[in-house]
Amino acid sequence: MIGRLNHVAIAVPDLEAAMALYRTTLGAKVSEPVDQPDHGVVTVFVELPNTKIELLYPLGDKSPIVNFLERNPAGGVHHICYEVEDILVARDQLKAAGARVLGDGEPKIGAHGKPVLFLHPKDMFGTLVEIEQV
Amino acid sequence: MIGRLNHVAIAVPDLEAAMALYRTTLGAKVSEPVDQPDHGVVTVFVELPNTKIELLYPLGDKSPIVNFLERNPAGGVHHICYEVEDILVARDQLKAAGARVLGDGEPKIGAHGKPVLFLHPKDMFGTLVEIEQV
Repeated sequence: MIGRLNHVAIAVPDLEAAMALYRTTLGAKVSEPVDQPDHGVVTVFVELPNTKIELLYPLGDKSPIVNFLERNPAGGVHHICYEVEDILVARDQLKAAGARVLGDGEPKIGAHGKPVLFLHPKDMFGTLVEIEQV
Repeated sequence: MIGRLNHVAIAVPDLEAAMALYRTTLGAKVSEPVDQPDHGVVTVFVELPNTKIELLYPLGDKSPIVNFLERNPAGGVHHICYEVEDILVARDQLKAAGARVLGDGEPKIGAHGKPVLFLHPKDMFGTLVEIEQV
């Protein structure tokens, strides 16, 4: 069912410093920051030859990554995203297998403009998993 | 400097269950387990079209992931691995930029038979980063 690893998302407490780490120290191609008001985050993409790293920084008081950064003040891997062909088929298969889908179970439009869902980390060996229809 | 994302490593407390999740529920191609006595882990590779997920399970009492699993009993992302062309050049650039290299700073032969080094998570926004020469 799952296809490519679309991205690894890393929440960071200092976006400028994280961009400098990836651009200058690690020598990768780093996008400019984009506010995602619908998602409560600022995103920066690090483009690798085969996938992306998504740097996440809180936007607004209700950002969904504020609690994560309180627990992980240095930052850390927030989620990983797998591509699927049909998100409703994938969701129904995952639910039938006992995986919990977060929220109301209906796909939302993610930061890339495509339908996404998140799966409960407790059902994914401690890893918050996003699935994205491509 | 960094090239492809070689793999995302996920430490798991139950290898059989994790293999079943990736093979059956998520429908991915999953290798058989391989003991890595030099590294204190059992590895299973989940082959995605563009990269790999490496499932890690402790091997022996001194496994380097025992502490991680005590802190994260459900499992979790343990490290991410970027490919580099020349690990000594990469190491020296990273050290010059202030990143701490773990251990004695000399590359070891990793689970794929290639030279690897690990960078301190505190210098990588809470993410344990492996670099592997390819």
